Amino acid sequence: MSLTESSASEIAQSASLASRRLATLSSDSRNEALTVLHAALSDERDYILQANARDVALATQAAENGELSQSVLKRLDLSRPGKYDDMLQGILSVRDLEDPVGRVTMRTLLDDDLVLERVTCPLGVLLIIFEARPEVIANIAALAIKSANAAILKGGKESTESFIAIAEVISAALSKTEIPIPAVQLVKTRDIVSSLLAQDTLIDLVIPRGSNELVRYVKDNTKIPVLGHADGLCSAYLHSDADVSTAVKVIVDSKTDYPAACNALETLLVHENVLESVLPAVAEALLAKGVSLRCDQASKKALTKTLPPAKAALLQDSVDQDYNTEFLDLVLALKTVPSQALELSAVQSAIAHVNAHSSKHTDIIITTSREVAETFMAGVDSAGVYWNASTRFADGMRYGFGTEVGISTNKIHTRGPVGLEGLTIYKYLIRGQGHVAADYAGLPGSKKWKHQKLDIVP
Amino acid sequence: MSLTESSASEIAQSASLASRRLATLSSDSRNEALTVLHAALSDERDYILQANARDVALATQAAENGELSQSVLKRLDLSRPGKYDDMLQGILSVRDLEDPVGRVTMRTLLDDDLVLERVTCPLGVLLIIFEARPEVIANIAALAIKSANAAILKGGKESTESFIAIAEVISAALSKTEIPIPAVQLVKTRDIVSSLLAQDTLIDLVIPRGSNELVRYVKDNTKIPVLGHADGLCSAYLHSDADVSTAVKVIVDSKTDYPAACNALETLLVHENVLESVLPAVAEALLAKGVSLRCDQASKKALTKTLPPAKAALLQDSVDQDYNTEFLDLVLALKTVPSQALELSAVQSAIAHVNAHSSKHTDIIITTSREVAETFMAGVDSAGVYWNASTRFADGMRYGFGTEVGISTNKIHTRGPVGLEGLTIYKYLIRGQGHVAADYAGLPGSKKWKHQKLDIVP
Repeated sequence: MSLTESSASEIAQSASLASRRLATLSSDSRNEALTVLHAALSDERDYILQANARDVALATQAAENGELSQSVLKRLDLSRPGKYDDMLQGILSVRDLEDPVGRVTMRTLLDDDLVLERVTCPLGVLLIIFEARPEVIANIAALAIKSANAAILKGGKESTESFIAIAEVISAALSKTEIPIPAVQLVKTRDIVSSLLAQDTLIDLVIPRGSNELVRYVKDNTKIPVLGHADGLCSAYLHSDADVSTAVKVIVDSKTDYPAACNALETLLVHENVLESVLPAVAEALLAKGVSLRCDQASKKALTKTLPPAKAALLQDSVDQDYNTEFLDLVLALKTVPSQALELSAVQSAIAHVNAHSSKHTDIIITTSREVAETFMAGVDSAGVYWNASTRFADGMRYGFGTEVGISTNKIHTRGPVGLEGLTIYKYLIRGQGHVAADYAGLPGSKKWKHQKLDIVP
Repeated sequence: MSLTESSASEIAQSASLASRRLATLSSDSRNEALTVLHAALSDERDYILQANARDVALATQAAENGELSQSVLKRLDLSRPGKYDDMLQGILSVRDLEDPVGRVTMRTLLDDDLVLERVTCPLGVLLIIFEARPEVIANIAALAIKSANAAILKGGKESTESFIAIAEVISAALSKTEIPIPAVQLVKTRDIVSSLLAQDTLIDLVIPRGSNELVRYVKDNTKIPVLGHADGLCSAYLHSDADVSTAVKVIVDSKTDYPAACNALETLLVHENVLESVLPAVAEALLAKGVSLRCDQASKKALTKTLPPAKAALLQDSVDQDYNTEFLDLVLALKTVPSQALELSAVQSAIAHVNAHSSKHTDIIITTSREVAETFMAGVDSAGVYWNASTRFADGMRYGFGTEVGISTNKIHTRGPVGLEGLTIYKYLIRGQGHVAADYAGLPGSKKWKHQKLDIVP
């Protein structure tokens, strides 16, 4: 075994042991640790900002040499107004959320004095790989402690000095609490990531937070379950009865509120009957916001006929690949949906397109018909399906989860915006008095199961 | 692409399309289909039993040649008394379970006329790989239809004729219902399995039902999530205050009620203080049932001293590997737990042993102390942790789930015995009236989130 591998297994092993201790700590102990962590990061602000300044200085040079983008530089700088305070406040916000661990979600009387309980518990060990933003380490440490999971953290190399300083402060703070120090471990070298991804017996979940490339790399290189979405290819379907002002508002917001977000709109499906009635107003509003429209033949023809020539001149022709592309930019692919095709109604064709092309993130329908909306919501296989509401609502804070661990396009465990609950699983507890299975063998004279649902309040 | 691959992708593609249609069918449609399926299998009993008889004839020959075990032969035979009727009854039992799909599990008022709902929905496409027992195909078809999932089925080669006959009857029955025929597909050739395991964009869950080798093969050869446990290495810890009669009853049942089951006991940890008090009665009862005891030095010494010489002569010495072995037989590994070791109390040492050696299936403690029991239940990271109750209770029917899809030793999605619920996930639906995210930007004059929990009854 190479030095790196042994080291990755040591890290995972100590995290696993720490996770078992964490799992037995009370809610109060974990919350108290977050208070201590908050105080320490507050006290050591100068020390951490000095370390961050060294990262920023190096990154500024790299940006000047054209080796680093201005946006990475901007995200790196913890001294920007409000940023450090937001990081501190985030820790207290997480502390004040409901405890996701130890909740009884099922209680069944199997027989007299034999009670089955399902109780939420932490997953165990999380591996979180994220890019430049240095404040994420504090946020993730808080989420892990709150949910009683151990966390192994690997941040982007541009934030190295900031991470080391913050990790030092976190470790020193944890040493004053009941949380075992290896519950939060920082990994500094990039080489170790692939070895950590091989620790599938000790690490329970990987959370990559960053670019699509990062998420894809992680998904392709581990057997550990991954929480994350590589793509957010969201679609909207404009039905034949869509209200014009609803369509304009919702589609413009979905596309332009934050085009680089995973919940931004990328494809607009339009019922052929509204190509010349509803679509032109939507297209004009989008063009006014600087959106490039990549149209199929029918939609281009209709818009060319209905839009002022100067606007129509901006229209582009779509190619097949546009309907599989997450533009993350002010570009939108348009496609016409026939009112009837083969044996499919328009809404069924729209559903089929979405299920074949979208990334199962969030898709919406604009219609005034409840029936059509319900058909679309049942038929589309995505984490979020909305009726007359913007795709941009797909977000943990907006859903009211208090925090967002990530957005999942998986089909198992968690789907869509993930709150603290996504970092938990459950275990079944039985409390008996010497009960044995042989007594319930179904023979004459055997004991009978009661299987009586009990209240879940103790 | 080879012929096999293209065929696997066609199967998965048609299953995926069928799954989308299934997901939109009402509970009544799915239940009605199960009634039709039941009637068809009942009507075609002779046809199916004839096909089964051909399988049995071939298998009998193979058994005579020593190429097949008697137990496989026995499981193959659908004409054994009650077996066919049980299969039929199983379909009706599944039909009569609560619908796992379409249940609202969260409802939040985000703002006026903007409601977020979390609704359970099917996973999509299941791939089920199972061994000889031919009745499983009817059981699985029923579970899939009930939970609105499409199923691709691959059975063991010994049951080929039976499977083909049953699958024919199922397809003919489904053609009279709203269920699309490709919702249940039988795969006949073994070669295709590895190609199906590669269809991770179309298949949502693999359920291997059979030997540990099968489960391990599947887990090692797919990126699709797998529901199943390769091992059931269950442990019991006998604490210093354990009641003798409870210990004897529970441990004998755990070990001997059905030694080949995954929930049978494999390791017994014993507090050093009860080696000569509680353990001898337990050991005698186990020896009387024909259990071989593989003892560490301390437990062997204590038992040699306390048991009658004829019994003591049966004791064996354990080796390290015994504590990592799922014997699935009348063999039990014994290990002594010191009352204090390093800084660990006895229960902490027991927890550490279980977390390091067990397969996270089911582990139990025998103690009269609630406090010690709760420490053990919080500290052991297994799907089931019981106090004074047999490991053998780890079973979907015994838990009151009505059916058991499998037992999961995964840490995400589902854990322990899995009922129909494990074949579902959820989606988030939002119903709005043209709501857009830009209105909630947190600026002066922005709309405010209500985030008000609503009753989940409509």
